[in-house]
Amino acid sequence: MSEALKDFPESLQADTPKDGFALAVKLSRLGVKVTQPDMEVLKSLRPEYANNTRDLIASSQVISIHYQTIAAANNYWK
Amino acid sequence: MSEALKDFPESLQADTPKDGFALAVKLSRLGVKVTQPDMEVLKSLRPEYANNTRDLIASSQVISIHYQTIAAANNYWK
Amino acid sequence: MSEALKDFPESLQADTPKDGFALAVKLSRLGVKVTQPDMEVLKSLRPEYANNTRDLIASSQVISIHYQTIAAANNYWK
Amino acid sequence: MSEALKDFPESLQADTPKDGFALAVKLSRLGVKVTQPDMEVLKSLRPEYANNTRDLIASSQVISIHYQTIAAANNYWK
Amino acid sequence: MSEALKDFPESLQADTPKDGFALAVKLSRLGVKVTQPDMEVLKSLRPEYANNTRDLIASSQVISIHYQTIAAANNYWK
Amino acid sequence: MSEALKDFPESLQADTPKDGFALAVKLSRLGVKVTQPDMEVLKSLRPEYANNTRDLIASSQVISIHYQTIAAANNYWK
Repeated sequence: MSEALKDFPESLQADTPKDGFALAVKLSRLGVKVTQPDMEVLKSLRPEYANNTRDLIASSQVISIHYQTIAAANNYWK
Repeated sequence: MSEALKDFPESLQADTPKDGFALAVKLSRLGVKVTQPDMEVLKSLRPEYANNTRDLIASSQVISIHYQTIAAANNYWK
Repeated sequence: MSEALKDFPESLQADTPKDGFALAVKLSRLGVKVTQPDMEVLKSLRPEYANNTRDLIASSQVISIHYQTIAAANNYWK
Repeated sequence: MSEALKDFPESLQADTPKDGFALAVKLSRLGVKVTQPDMEVLKSLRPEYANNTRDLIASSQVISIHYQTIAAANNYWK
Repeated sequence: MSEALKDFPESLQADTPKDGFALAVKLSRLGVKVTQPDMEVLKSLRPEYANNTRDLIASSQVISIHYQTIAAANNYWK
Repeated sequence: MSEALKDFPESLQADTPKDGFALAVKLSRLGVKVTQPDMEVLKSLRPEYANNTRDLIASSQVISIHYQTIAAANNYWK
């Protein structure tokens, strides 16, 4: 697992809501990578999920859950 | 990713519950766009998800999670 | 999007847990309507989702997430 | 919708974690009933969902989300 | 419903994170049992869900939601 | 269940966001293991879920929910 998480961010703090969203996307992808570390396999699967409505919506949902965490971590950038 | 997020909102603050909901819809769609940046592909998929009950309900769920975040960010517009 | 959200509620405040639940149902449906604004299409899909166990459970889940938001917005009607 | 919600509980307060769980089950079922008010249809669907692993797990998930709301509403019965 | 919930825990308090996780597993299973009280049916379904990747992941998700509730109820065992 | 949970962590505290994510991955996997304790079965299922886009996304979602719990438990490592 440590290999898949080697470039994990040091902090959940993000300067802007946009940076926080990019962090949420990164965490969502790390959640896939930690389960399937083989980048060649992940690349081979891209044509499938990137053209599948259910997978695209499900991906957006994982991002929304991580974003909820990161937004709270940054006090909603108030 | 930065191209997909180029028109990301500056803040999670919204004047009204309705504006907050529109923001939640925007974030949900950005979560799809960041995974599939090709707008032609997304347009081609619309007939499928816009007429599929499961996809429509799943889209509404992603909006509900982002709305939970945005409502908390705006102290529920109390 | 503004057409779909034209009758969005002014506030998340609700007098009772029951009114809060009705509001959660309304937001869940608006989340579908904002993705598929054509009411004729939505009506045509009703026989499908209203008789499909998975869709009915998934709809109830979206309502549960919005209800969590609205209950917090109303301090759980304590 | 008002017919489906006519016996909605007056409060989210529950004396015990067990009563709170029963309330979460009730809200989950009301979320289905508000989408499909015809009890005959719901009864006809029972053999399907009550013997389908995915539907049973999905039902338990809706209960878990409502339970999270109700537990917070009751300050976790501390 | 009362039969299915007869051995519901008295409290959400748990001595350790591990006990809290066991409680979350128990609540997840009670959420299935309250929908399908017939233990013979549940036993007959086990070969299906216990060897189905989607069902196993979905079960883990229900546990994660209950665990979120129980961890908050125990102030994260700090 | 106690066998599956025998190496459950003593605490939800984690030194860094990265350690917290590794803990979330561990809890997600324990949620599968507690439902299917037979490691041979789980190993046999790996080719299926590790090459299935929907399962990979669903796994990432369970991790995101546990991570939300662990991040709150660690006050977001502020």
